[in-house]
Amino acid sequence: MTRGFVSLVGAGPGDPGLLTVTAVRRLREADIVFYDALVQPETLAIADHAARFYVGKRAGRPAIAQDTITRLLIRAARRGKRIVRLKGGDPFVFGRGGEEMLALRAAGIDYEVVPGISSAIAAPACAGIPVTHRGLTSAFVVVSGHDRAALAPVLGAIAPGTVTIVILMGLGTRAAAVELLLARGWSPDTPAAICRGAWTPDLAVWTGSLENLANAAAGDGDMPGTIVVGAVAALASATPWAEADAPCPASLKAAR
Amino acid sequence: MTRGFVSLVGAGPGDPGLLTVTAVRRLREADIVFYDALVQPETLAIADHAARFYVGKRAGRPAIAQDTITRLLIRAARRGKRIVRLKGGDPFVFGRGGEEMLALRAAGIDYEVVPGISSAIAAPACAGIPVTHRGLTSAFVVVSGHDRAALAPVLGAIAPGTVTIVILMGLGTRAAAVELLLARGWSPDTPAAICRGAWTPDLAVWTGSLENLANAAAGDGDMPGTIVVGAVAALASATPWAEADAPCPASLKAAR
Repeated sequence: MTRGFVSLVGAGPGDPGLLTVTAVRRLREADIVFYDALVQPETLAIADHAARFYVGKRAGRPAIAQDTITRLLIRAARRGKRIVRLKGGDPFVFGRGGEEMLALRAAGIDYEVVPGISSAIAAPACAGIPVTHRGLTSAFVVVSGHDRAALAPVLGAIAPGTVTIVILMGLGTRAAAVELLLARGWSPDTPAAICRGAWTPDLAVWTGSLENLANAAAGDGDMPGTIVVGAVAALASATPWAEADAPCPASLKAAR
Repeated sequence: MTRGFVSLVGAGPGDPGLLTVTAVRRLREADIVFYDALVQPETLAIADHAARFYVGKRAGRPAIAQDTITRLLIRAARRGKRIVRLKGGDPFVFGRGGEEMLALRAAGIDYEVVPGISSAIAAPACAGIPVTHRGLTSAFVVVSGHDRAALAPVLGAIAPGTVTIVILMGLGTRAAAVELLLARGWSPDTPAAICRGAWTPDLAVWTGSLENLANAAAGDGDMPGTIVVGAVAALASATPWAEADAPCPASLKAAR
């Protein structure tokens, strides 16, 4: 019997062209795929020989508890299966990949981590915003807006204007983020941007300043959004890419 | 005549398996590739039909000035060429990709950005360290150690113990980083790690604490190193992956 193996794989921000070569190979070879929300159908279709199970969130709540997921991974690996645990973005950026890695280690299961393109960097890039830029910023901090309780200590810990701030999944809590940053002494004029649906055909970019970020029209609440606060947000391109109907660069060239 | 086109492409941390699907496609289609240091020969070999020019650093100094590089890109694009500007990691993380993007925009050249896997997240992952981890840290900051002058304001701006700190290209300045963090009030016991040669066969991982980070044996100075400071550094695996002779996960499975 083959020895089972678990690959913790990052699916990137959406566009299947931003999967890594190794991620594609693992999906093609997989017996079983356990996948989260934010994974595109085209990405999942690569694993057309595999049994595929959704273990992400439904209506904001986990469909399956985290320890149930790790139990499923361990059980399947002990049956000799090649398993892909597929997560949006990168498995180690707010993906709970670390917890699954520790559980697999403790159970003595062979595993690997296949990093993915994180929206923390790629969503701003899709809007023409570099997270670092000579003369503007030499560091960036990444925080999740999904966990409202975690925002306050992090945003309170950083001196105003010193770094680019990237908030993932922060559309719903952006009013709180703005309040925290203004209270911490950030200038209301600090450039800010929201990148929604980055690297999907639904890209929508809003740019403005910190003081009007909370009231920015953010559309429906379902689409994940990445918020950028800092001087680099002003580099967003109004007509971001070479062709107006091309939502993102990879799609642009692929469509030619 | 075809319209010229510039792709600002991230080559990822080293392993060609961590190139994106789009990056591979652009390399195969390219007429000309301008590449930096830290790009592996196997990656460059994908562009075997292209003229390839090294424009990275020699002995720590740029071989070619930045404005010369952008002039080369613009001139080649105006001749109708498909150009890949290939950078280690991600083009928008300390890659000066933002400057090249702005120059291309100003010149009216069609361009795109193809994000790459950044060592900021993937080098720690190669050592089994997640940059975020529930219960340990809910944010991370990324700063370049290459620019010593930029370290002080960033490291001084962050309250001790609140986020994971990732320092890219920081082997040479790590004594200064340790001094700044201790002066800022970070505990000398804070876990720390150095990941060198991540995602190459030369992976070497050191783990310890902040107080002995400066004196850690870091081997020769040529290999790029990523430093992690924070509780997550303690999650590094002593025998990181399933097989001792497998330097990194992607290589592990590929070798089977």
